[in-house]
Amino acid sequence: MAIRFLTAGESHGPALVGIIEGLPAGLSVNEEQINRWLTRRQGGYGRGKRMSIEADRVRFLSGLRFGKTTGAPLALLIENRDRVNWEKIMPLLASGEPEEKRITAPRPGHADLPGGIKYLHGDLRDVLERASARETALRVAVGAVASLLLDHFSIKTVSFVSAIGAIKASAPWEKWDAVQIEQARGASLYCPDRDAEKKMIKEIERAGEGGDSLGGVFEVHVEGVPAGLGSYVHWDRRLDAALAGALMSIPGVKGVEIGLGFGAAEKKGSQVHDQLFLDDKGGLCRRTNRAGGLEGGVTNGETIVLRAAMKPIPTLQRPLSSVDLATGLPCAAAVERADICAVPAASVVGEAAVAWTIAGAILEKFSRDSIRELETAYRNYQNMVEGYLYKNNDKNKD
Amino acid sequence: MAIRFLTAGESHGPALVGIIEGLPAGLSVNEEQINRWLTRRQGGYGRGKRMSIEADRVRFLSGLRFGKTTGAPLALLIENRDRVNWEKIMPLLASGEPEEKRITAPRPGHADLPGGIKYLHGDLRDVLERASARETALRVAVGAVASLLLDHFSIKTVSFVSAIGAIKASAPWEKWDAVQIEQARGASLYCPDRDAEKKMIKEIERAGEGGDSLGGVFEVHVEGVPAGLGSYVHWDRRLDAALAGALMSIPGVKGVEIGLGFGAAEKKGSQVHDQLFLDDKGGLCRRTNRAGGLEGGVTNGETIVLRAAMKPIPTLQRPLSSVDLATGLPCAAAVERADICAVPAASVVGEAAVAWTIAGAILEKFSRDSIRELETAYRNYQNMVEGYLYKNNDKNKD
Amino acid sequence: MAIRFLTAGESHGPALVGIIEGLPAGLSVNEEQINRWLTRRQGGYGRGKRMSIEADRVRFLSGLRFGKTTGAPLALLIENRDRVNWEKIMPLLASGEPEEKRITAPRPGHADLPGGIKYLHGDLRDVLERASARETALRVAVGAVASLLLDHFSIKTVSFVSAIGAIKASAPWEKWDAVQIEQARGASLYCPDRDAEKKMIKEIERAGEGGDSLGGVFEVHVEGVPAGLGSYVHWDRRLDAALAGALMSIPGVKGVEIGLGFGAAEKKGSQVHDQLFLDDKGGLCRRTNRAGGLEGGVTNGETIVLRAAMKPIPTLQRPLSSVDLATGLPCAAAVERADICAVPAASVVGEAAVAWTIAGAILEKFSRDSIRELETAYRNYQNMVEGYLYKNNDKNKD
Amino acid sequence: MAIRFLTAGESHGPALVGIIEGLPAGLSVNEEQINRWLTRRQGGYGRGKRMSIEADRVRFLSGLRFGKTTGAPLALLIENRDRVNWEKIMPLLASGEPEEKRITAPRPGHADLPGGIKYLHGDLRDVLERASARETALRVAVGAVASLLLDHFSIKTVSFVSAIGAIKASAPWEKWDAVQIEQARGASLYCPDRDAEKKMIKEIERAGEGGDSLGGVFEVHVEGVPAGLGSYVHWDRRLDAALAGALMSIPGVKGVEIGLGFGAAEKKGSQVHDQLFLDDKGGLCRRTNRAGGLEGGVTNGETIVLRAAMKPIPTLQRPLSSVDLATGLPCAAAVERADICAVPAASVVGEAAVAWTIAGAILEKFSRDSIRELETAYRNYQNMVEGYLYKNNDKNKD
Repeated sequence: MAIRFLTAGESHGPALVGIIEGLPAGLSVNEEQINRWLTRRQGGYGRGKRMSIEADRVRFLSGLRFGKTTGAPLALLIENRDRVNWEKIMPLLASGEPEEKRITAPRPGHADLPGGIKYLHGDLRDVLERASARETALRVAVGAVASLLLDHFSIKTVSFVSAIGAIKASAPWEKWDAVQIEQARGASLYCPDRDAEKKMIKEIERAGEGGDSLGGVFEVHVEGVPAGLGSYVHWDRRLDAALAGALMSIPGVKGVEIGLGFGAAEKKGSQVHDQLFLDDKGGLCRRTNRAGGLEGGVTNGETIVLRAAMKPIPTLQRPLSSVDLATGLPCAAAVERADICAVPAASVVGEAAVAWTIAGAILEKFSRDSIRELETAYRNYQNMVEGYLYKNNDKNKD
Repeated sequence: MAIRFLTAGESHGPALVGIIEGLPAGLSVNEEQINRWLTRRQGGYGRGKRMSIEADRVRFLSGLRFGKTTGAPLALLIENRDRVNWEKIMPLLASGEPEEKRITAPRPGHADLPGGIKYLHGDLRDVLERASARETALRVAVGAVASLLLDHFSIKTVSFVSAIGAIKASAPWEKWDAVQIEQARGASLYCPDRDAEKKMIKEIERAGEGGDSLGGVFEVHVEGVPAGLGSYVHWDRRLDAALAGALMSIPGVKGVEIGLGFGAAEKKGSQVHDQLFLDDKGGLCRRTNRAGGLEGGVTNGETIVLRAAMKPIPTLQRPLSSVDLATGLPCAAAVERADICAVPAASVVGEAAVAWTIAGAILEKFSRDSIRELETAYRNYQNMVEGYLYKNNDKNKD
Repeated sequence: MAIRFLTAGESHGPALVGIIEGLPAGLSVNEEQINRWLTRRQGGYGRGKRMSIEADRVRFLSGLRFGKTTGAPLALLIENRDRVNWEKIMPLLASGEPEEKRITAPRPGHADLPGGIKYLHGDLRDVLERASARETALRVAVGAVASLLLDHFSIKTVSFVSAIGAIKASAPWEKWDAVQIEQARGASLYCPDRDAEKKMIKEIERAGEGGDSLGGVFEVHVEGVPAGLGSYVHWDRRLDAALAGALMSIPGVKGVEIGLGFGAAEKKGSQVHDQLFLDDKGGLCRRTNRAGGLEGGVTNGETIVLRAAMKPIPTLQRPLSSVDLATGLPCAAAVERADICAVPAASVVGEAAVAWTIAGAILEKFSRDSIRELETAYRNYQNMVEGYLYKNNDKNKD
Repeated sequence: MAIRFLTAGESHGPALVGIIEGLPAGLSVNEEQINRWLTRRQGGYGRGKRMSIEADRVRFLSGLRFGKTTGAPLALLIENRDRVNWEKIMPLLASGEPEEKRITAPRPGHADLPGGIKYLHGDLRDVLERASARETALRVAVGAVASLLLDHFSIKTVSFVSAIGAIKASAPWEKWDAVQIEQARGASLYCPDRDAEKKMIKEIERAGEGGDSLGGVFEVHVEGVPAGLGSYVHWDRRLDAALAGALMSIPGVKGVEIGLGFGAAEKKGSQVHDQLFLDDKGGLCRRTNRAGGLEGGVTNGETIVLRAAMKPIPTLQRPLSSVDLATGLPCAAAVERADICAVPAASVVGEAAVAWTIAGAILEKFSRDSIRELETAYRNYQNMVEGYLYKNNDKNKD
């Protein structure tokens, strides 16, 4: 219970709401930095009309005073501008029954049908309003708050798109350096390979023309993470497991890799494991990072490298075959306003989910009531590790 | 907290111990069935010498009476036969210092180094004894107990190996039927494609001769799962996330896929989502299962299909380059007795982890104090779902 | 994780916010019923000026449609009317430092000093704004939502004040029946003994005149609870422990009793344990309820009887001796606007905390995704228990 | 998830088993110290015959090497010597039905009936074997391990008996100093008032002669706790709530108090709150500790003072009225071998539960992977607090 959060809110409800509990006191919260994350989530070529209605901005309701956390829970609120168009269809408390926009034709690939079955919902709108990716706006805000904590320790998360449908960025992740990845934030699809990106945009256009949708692959990297987060001592303390769960929990994600991922399964041990060497100053170093920064479920000090596969959006403008639950007859699946491709947005959500998970691992490991205490503990650990690794080095012998 | 477990035990300690808390009362526990899982975990071509020393059998110490659970926690114990050879090196309570078999040359790819850093262990044996895959024997026993619960509802887990190194079974998972997969349990590598399996064995031989190691890919399927397990309402209730976390927590796993997985990212929506049709009797059906049984984080009633990539074993008999922490000098990595390839074993561990997760989702959803109560609740839900889906069908109109 | 909630909000912040996650779908939510709980919390003789500023009403932001839960999280918001007077002193994001109303003289008995130490807060306002009992308004709303669930199963919570300072209601709890207790809700101090209540009011007046404060004792009863909630199988599944923790978590509570409580320690076993008899119809019955409805940490079907001791409010208008943290010099403790006695309010908070805990125990035990599924599961259990207890009775033999 | 444990085992099963997960690496574990706790739990005048059969000693199976924790989970095992007499009645796996010692006459005050109802057990032995206080032997071992951690920080727990039935130690807790309490460990009833103790022994004799049983009151104190454990920021972070829950989870406990407890409800604020003064050296001090070391759910640096009321043992040799579940007819309650009075034992269990809870709060607050890291973090916090409190003192001005 080092740190936790809950989110609430429907796609066309009044607002998305979140509470973060467990932050240290004394953390400076820059509202604009949070909002930049929200803006990034709304961007990316291929987004639908909704994104032009909303201009997400977070509003804090608690936990801060003069711009700093107090140790008390943070309440976050993001208004749904689109709400005004939905008050009749989505009243919270008015009695009665939904008349308009009732949905009974589940979209293949969406939570519509399994969600309707689980909760026995007659109107699948009661499912999709919460299963909507709109909820991820709040998760991004939560991750953005977590990133403020990471900033204190110069831990940096980045994300980018490496494939849209069958179009892949021309090189593996090792090739792209942090600067290129950072620049990708400004690109149409958050892809550091600009040539590939042009093809991706075309692919999205084509899919849109055909009433179809596209998925893709995104990566999240975390630089500057200390060695020793997570643990091998019990399966549910492993950080690789937590990160995989966090990414797989993002709507549409169907695959997760760390480092070489599935590629590691194809090679021999001698080609996979990152050998240890001494650098010029006698320090331990690795020349490769195929493990993606995690060995035995524990960070090893290298950049954490994560990759997630997102399936295409389940809402197709040329709808798939479905069955109407109200009549029991075949029909076309429901058509909602939707994106053609949301991989760029998902990459930001993924980055947020990873930022949260890393922040949690830090607060789990170190003294965490105040930033001051945390910083001191962090620095002391770094010193201990330095001594641990280099106790036999000349520089430690003096 | 529907159900939980803890495991304890070192690779060369006296025993592995586990406690399962939260099982319903009245579940019949067949010791032999648990032991068959343990035997499967020990099998597979490419295993090292340790597996010939151990013949794992579970011993229960509590929670059962006349072969049935009472609702109280189950304690499980698996003895380490190899213990007798390690009492001097691994005493629990004797004072003193380790003299023999002290390890200071971390193996690339293993928890050795990050674990040593985290806990500041001077002898990396203090890391590897727990980070060892030996611990998975207990996790298999725990999953086997969970599978007894699944049996009550005719939910069936299967697992098989689909690739060793670069050698892949010739067909995708859809091709192999349950019978073939079941037969694979008796095969040398638990692979249903016997031709591929022969090549895999050769590949393992070659790797062994080169002092190298191999990874691979395994799949876990779950048949007969009801629709409605897991939820989309909060990210940490999603069953896809829980399953991904469970698989990624297995030592050596670096990638996880559900259904088409990364393949889904390459295709258009119309090629990915499983359309809904009516079957001959007017029932809903799908003709494909590319979603792998999970939509929106919720089971949809189709077979759950999971795939995991395992990296090669980090212990190489021709060791990689390392740095000796005791001297600060370059050295060869430590060499421990080890498997050349443990993918077949990992497939059993994966199946166990999945069985546990599904059992947990069932106990989370349904009345769960006694098997009798659980069975009644399960049946009632199935009836409600039947009515929900087919209320407009003729058969429900009478 | 059957059900959970988080709250956020400061005493003089913009609002109190809560999120409830895990409610079944299909629960009717009556806003007025929630508000009645909030009004009760604000009542009771002896309250300070703040209560005349606020008129707490809950606002829902999610999780409901047409007055029913959808299974998605509920967001609740209670505005702080008093906020307008505090925007300069308590800005969330403005930079700068607090100038006015900075607090450095900790009040004995309050979180001021230990909270300041823990988070290293220079201005104790950063502690007291969250440590304030104002937060309990949200907890009452959360408990009121839980009570809607209890209503479905005719489980009824009641609370009343049984002592203010040294003045005690003239009889033990067994004497007061449900009607009297219910009527007490309308009384000045929520005390069913009207004679005692008059003396209590005088006692509060006297304390107020002396710049002093008063505590007291309240009780919470729960009627209609099924046998079998909670468990003895593991210490953290015991319902008595959960209830004690819930009550002790209310600001000011320093003692908790179940049934006879400390009185049980003074008597012999033969005078304490509730013997079992047959009633006229051959049913099991007890003629006493000294156990307060809990045996072995499990409900036994009798009324749950809980009692909590609340210490006097720590804010005294005639302040106690303190030490100014800014100067290191002796001083009078800070004086905030405060109640003289808040036991009636605390009784409502206690009732809410208990309602939540019981609702959680129900959702932990029974199928819980929808009210329909839950009701069916609950009824089936009742039938099983009936058969279990009376399988040898004549009425079960036919 | 800073730290957690599970226990397993029945009263007449082969053994009690526990796993502790989350201990820092490098903690010295002194087996004898654990065993002394177990011996204390077995002591106390008024115990039954079972205690003469058992001589509880812990056996560790993992998590230690050369007497120090490694960071891996600790497995603990306590054998049941009495097991040999119960193998036919309590086989774990043999098929068949219990023939002997089947129990169908629930004891009033015991988990027998509510437990039987919950799990639908035909033989109440399936309840009482786990509901038995025998399980507390393992909880004591767990608490004893926690106390080893507390020793590192000179935090000391003590417990003593302050009442047996109607006989109360002649003075309130403030009178007894640590030495007297410590000496009480050697006394027949662990009571520091030797005169009262003599009367208590007589009272137990009388109760035994009458086939009756007795409860009483015990106290647990914790000295040397740093200020700042627990928190007021969310109800479930309050340490007072956790402690109350831990004590109430002990079999037979029906009431819990902190500091003055119910006594605080009777007095005015000016008589209850512990005023702050300066000591000779200019340090903050209190002259009273009516709060029992906890203000606002947070430790304030004073001794933690807890008190628990234990009801009489529910097993009476002159049995109470019950109803036979097998026949539906009135009968005498089952008679098991039992203690007349177990308050001294309960005081040790209470001390163990408190030690665990405090250790958990420390590991929740501070860097916790290794004792070295923890000690450094602890010391740094103490320095920060020193600076925080005395920054204006002369000694801090230089």
